[in-house]
Amino acid sequence: MGTDPTSVAAVQLAPEMGDVPGNRQRALDAVGAAAHAGAQVVVLPELATTGYCFRNADEARALAEPLDGPTIAALHESAAEHDVVVAAGLAVLEADGTLRNSAVLVDADGLRTTYHKVHLWAREPEFFTPGDAPPTVVDTRHGRLGLLVCYDLEFPEWVRRLALDGAELVCAPVNWPDPGRPAGERPLEVVTAQVAAATNRVFLAVADRVGEERGTSWVGGSVIAGPEGYPLALSPLDGRTAVLLADCDLAEARDKAVGPLNDRFVDRRPHLYGFPGE
Amino acid sequence: MGTDPTSVAAVQLAPEMGDVPGNRQRALDAVGAAAHAGAQVVVLPELATTGYCFRNADEARALAEPLDGPTIAALHESAAEHDVVVAAGLAVLEADGTLRNSAVLVDADGLRTTYHKVHLWAREPEFFTPGDAPPTVVDTRHGRLGLLVCYDLEFPEWVRRLALDGAELVCAPVNWPDPGRPAGERPLEVVTAQVAAATNRVFLAVADRVGEERGTSWVGGSVIAGPEGYPLALSPLDGRTAVLLADCDLAEARDKAVGPLNDRFVDRRPHLYGFPGE
Repeated sequence: MGTDPTSVAAVQLAPEMGDVPGNRQRALDAVGAAAHAGAQVVVLPELATTGYCFRNADEARALAEPLDGPTIAALHESAAEHDVVVAAGLAVLEADGTLRNSAVLVDADGLRTTYHKVHLWAREPEFFTPGDAPPTVVDTRHGRLGLLVCYDLEFPEWVRRLALDGAELVCAPVNWPDPGRPAGERPLEVVTAQVAAATNRVFLAVADRVGEERGTSWVGGSVIAGPEGYPLALSPLDGRTAVLLADCDLAEARDKAVGPLNDRFVDRRPHLYGFPGE
Repeated sequence: MGTDPTSVAAVQLAPEMGDVPGNRQRALDAVGAAAHAGAQVVVLPELATTGYCFRNADEARALAEPLDGPTIAALHESAAEHDVVVAAGLAVLEADGTLRNSAVLVDADGLRTTYHKVHLWAREPEFFTPGDAPPTVVDTRHGRLGLLVCYDLEFPEWVRRLALDGAELVCAPVNWPDPGRPAGERPLEVVTAQVAAATNRVFLAVADRVGEERGTSWVGGSVIAGPEGYPLALSPLDGRTAVLLADCDLAEARDKAVGPLNDRFVDRRPHLYGFPGE
């Protein structure tokens, strides 16, 4: 990787509920466009091929795909063609019939890791079984990457764990339903992502979605935050699809220093927090 | 307390380095002014009577006071006169000679609790011994209050612990040295406080300082954040002293629900984070 920055894209899509082939094609088109713009890592939204607002578990099951299904195969082909690493959120049907809200990391070598969302939001437990394991940090040719999904970001313990495990760039597919906010305020979801990055001195690329779906609208707050916590790229919050791009020098995320005398990790007092074995 | 909101003040002062009597008087005047404006809880900055930029440990020691010294006595008198709870940051000289960067909670009954800052910033370890214990949550006539000091806020594990212990309003004396920020951005320190409040659905009142001191300038970013994470009151960031006031319905902080189906505490997966015994 050297000291060259990694070009990271967060792709804000507008999936159509239930149109898996169409959504897959839109995702592939976006990966191609981002790669054409120079991206080496491309992050797609949560549940990018299915949509989010399932009526019931049967509908979710009918739309989900196995990990050897056509979406992963197509992402692999696209990743190889463009030499990019793709992080995408998908509804995954496991061999034993378990349904998962997952994120996958795919590069030219194929599927590198799958992470099952641990913190489920709203009606998701009706459709999905939560994960029981932390995301695996993966060394890719474009950096040490880790995955989280949406509501996971609101649990700082979980982001911390991934950062302590060595992730330099956290790729976070999300679907942020819009709860509204006071006038003039940046969405709390975006601000939470900023602070997650700063607290751990990691880069964090969040790909949100847009497009009204069965009465739900979305923040559309895709953001790429740097280790200082400020956005390197931020959605204009206009409800439209977008490709955000930022150059991320991932070496910065290996240095946890803040100021000349402090360090985000060294300054922790884990025996006081209750963490064992640290 | 009933369901009446608690009126909370965050007082942004400009201490003069080393002028303990003058700083004490400015702090007392500010408590009186805040009480006059209706405040029931008043938060003062970190190291409010001494200043921050000690040249060496001897200077810090010469300016620090014991817990039975004149500052606590004067805050007790003022708290009784105005029926307010005061949270203040002070340099504390313990009976055994240990120097602490502490926060105290004082009400009409006197000193209710003392918390010694656990996460020390920059040169502070030259002057102060870090605390080794979590802050104690105190039931006051104006709510269940907890204390943190400055850099403590940047460790989400620590804020979480205080919230899990039942704090409804976190009072945080700070001295935020200004590291600068991109144009148009809200200071990351302020944003971090917002997210700390939202992540735990607590109220959080931060009293920062202003006034250049031995080459250091300050964010001056006092803020009172609500459990949704948005500011209820925010410093205009103009480098001036200020009294921020906000009505805080602390009952909101006892309900950790986010949306109809989620909960900030219940949705945690502590056995995955490594927390024992939960």
